[in-house]
Amino acid sequence: MARGDEAWTETGRERLADFGIFRADRAWRRGPHGKEGSFVVLDAPDWAVVVPAVERDGRRWVLTVRQYRHGSRAVSDEFPGGVVEPGEAPEAAAARELLEETGYRAARLVPIGSCSPNPAFMANTFHVFVAEGLERVADQYLDEHELVDVEAVPEDELLARVGRAPWDHALMIAAAFFYERYLRPPL
Amino acid sequence: MARGDEAWTETGRERLADFGIFRADRAWRRGPHGKEGSFVVLDAPDWAVVVPAVERDGRRWVLTVRQYRHGSRAVSDEFPGGVVEPGEAPEAAAARELLEETGYRAARLVPIGSCSPNPAFMANTFHVFVAEGLERVADQYLDEHELVDVEAVPEDELLARVGRAPWDHALMIAAAFFYERYLRPPL
Repeated sequence: MARGDEAWTETGRERLADFGIFRADRAWRRGPHGKEGSFVVLDAPDWAVVVPAVERDGRRWVLTVRQYRHGSRAVSDEFPGGVVEPGEAPEAAAARELLEETGYRAARLVPIGSCSPNPAFMANTFHVFVAEGLERVADQYLDEHELVDVEAVPEDELLARVGRAPWDHALMIAAAFFYERYLRPPL
Repeated sequence: MARGDEAWTETGRERLADFGIFRADRAWRRGPHGKEGSFVVLDAPDWAVVVPAVERDGRRWVLTVRQYRHGSRAVSDEFPGGVVEPGEAPEAAAARELLEETGYRAARLVPIGSCSPNPAFMANTFHVFVAEGLERVADQYLDEHELVDVEAVPEDELLARVGRAPWDHALMIAAAFFYERYLRPPL
């Protein structure tokens, strides 16, 4: 009997649209049960974010960014990050976005997790890093349509806010999950 | 000076495509800085999942589903769930998907969190519930293109697996984050 853990075979693919931030394809796939179906899949660049943690006055703080988001039409608090450009390593993208959005550079980035934004219809990967050894080296340098407020939030307060608006971006919740595992690894 | 926490005004909207599982629009928006930009946004139905927890032999177990996912082209372990149909309450959708995918019915569902799958370009909401008082009442009843394996996993083992493939669906990581908060609320 066919099972859910068996792969499907692609039998055809058609480009439906190219929206710049992602392309939409229709893929025909044959399942292990012998049936064929067609599925809309989005191919987007990978995304990367970074949790920038700083120690100051004996307390840990995290740099966050606040911006209006055009899908939800609401303001969202997030970790700095963005699109991994073609040929760019995820770590380099995280460092670049950190610099552009906050003006900070990190001595080193530590990968703490990666996941699929939505494996049901998205093909890309979301990468999460921690930034250590932060130093302010520049002013914010944003894209034309970006308006981003930077804030330093005490780490414990920040993590308590995650999961409720404006900290309700699913990928940021996943990043906070990875960060809590990083801070307190399970036994 | 214009800030990231100010809303933009929509000045135009055009339907680009209707893919069934979501529609793509181009929206023109004017920002608080007076500049105008165009943004591709996806309008999809809301999604709902449920964490079905059962006590058996003095231990807590969670029912999970395993299926091939057409975006990532990989097998994914997940909590039962799916699309909230038009006019359906998120809780009803979670109960329906639980029944269809596992054959279990819950005495009650408890909402434990909701978030935006991706506020940058998606308009919909993801809802998470816990199912209590589970009872097996039917056989699995799946859509034509679904092949889903159901498994009961000890709760502590399951939560330790979250964050790595095949438990690397960002929305499931967010759901696990909500579930851990539900099990162990912060002081």
